[in-house]
Amino acid sequence: MKSTESGDNEGLLVRRIKNGTVIDHIDGGEALNVVKILGITGATQEALSIATNVQSRDMGRKDIVKLTNRELSKEEVNRIALISPKATINIIRNFKVFEKKGVEIPTLIEGIVKCPNPGCISNTNEPIKSKFEVLPKGLHCLYCDWVITKDLTSHII
Amino acid sequence: MKSTESGDNEGLLVRRIKNGTVIDHIDGGEALNVVKILGITGATQEALSIATNVQSRDMGRKDIVKLTNRELSKEEVNRIALISPKATINIIRNFKVFEKKGVEIPTLIEGIVKCPNPGCISNTNEPIKSKFEVLPKGLHCLYCDWVITKDLTSHII
Repeated sequence: MKSTESGDNEGLLVRRIKNGTVIDHIDGGEALNVVKILGITGATQEALSIATNVQSRDMGRKDIVKLTNRELSKEEVNRIALISPKATINIIRNFKVFEKKGVEIPTLIEGIVKCPNPGCISNTNEPIKSKFEVLPKGLHCLYCDWVITKDLTSHII
Repeated sequence: MKSTESGDNEGLLVRRIKNGTVIDHIDGGEALNVVKILGITGATQEALSIATNVQSRDMGRKDIVKLTNRELSKEEVNRIALISPKATINIIRNFKVFEKKGVEIPTLIEGIVKCPNPGCISNTNEPIKSKFEVLPKGLHCLYCDWVITKDLTSHII
């Protein structure tokens, strides 16, 4: 059995929130990667709700993440595009959608992804953040020219 | 604002499931570690719902995880005890609680936690699984005698 976000007497799969951010239309199964790329891992103080592999009319399966009392910044929103380019972001204030945003693939990502090259200067004790430009073929390290072409999420710091 | 699992007109925080497992009374904020110790990381096929830092009468804050169409085994249930010894497990069949289980701290854990000692034989290419006995002071590696005393979840494989 697959669950649907609405349309039967079970109500919403994940309850609506008063204030915060709803990330909808996440690619099916990718919600845990989305929270990871937002820096939410392990034990967390966030009031978070997640539903994965929900049936969706448009997408087959989709995931939803709701973050209570946190409004994502443009930079955070765009990070999500690396994992789930069809995601939609709704900023909620007092139970109403205050702002809708699409996600845009960023051109540069700093400090989010670890360069897989052990010899890269960003993997030493130097006080610098990793820095990648986003190319069609993958993420290009601006320090050592390494290109991450697949399995991006396993390189998230 | 904190959410409550029931008691206002917003309904359940996470919808009830038809078949599967509900893990309730997880220590506040530990849900992501619980799914990790169950082997659910990154992109997943599971139909999962998670709510973190929900207000609880007994516990202050608690987390809830619902797993659709998966009934946890005793070994999986007991792994959860390492992270959240007060967790309760409900096996759900056709919307009803079929079985309730407490979690028991296991005496031995195999293949779940990586030994932090780089020289441990379990970190070589030998075809063996890591093996720890659970002691009051921490997890004791049965291969190299290393003891993990804190931050267990960062060592989950």
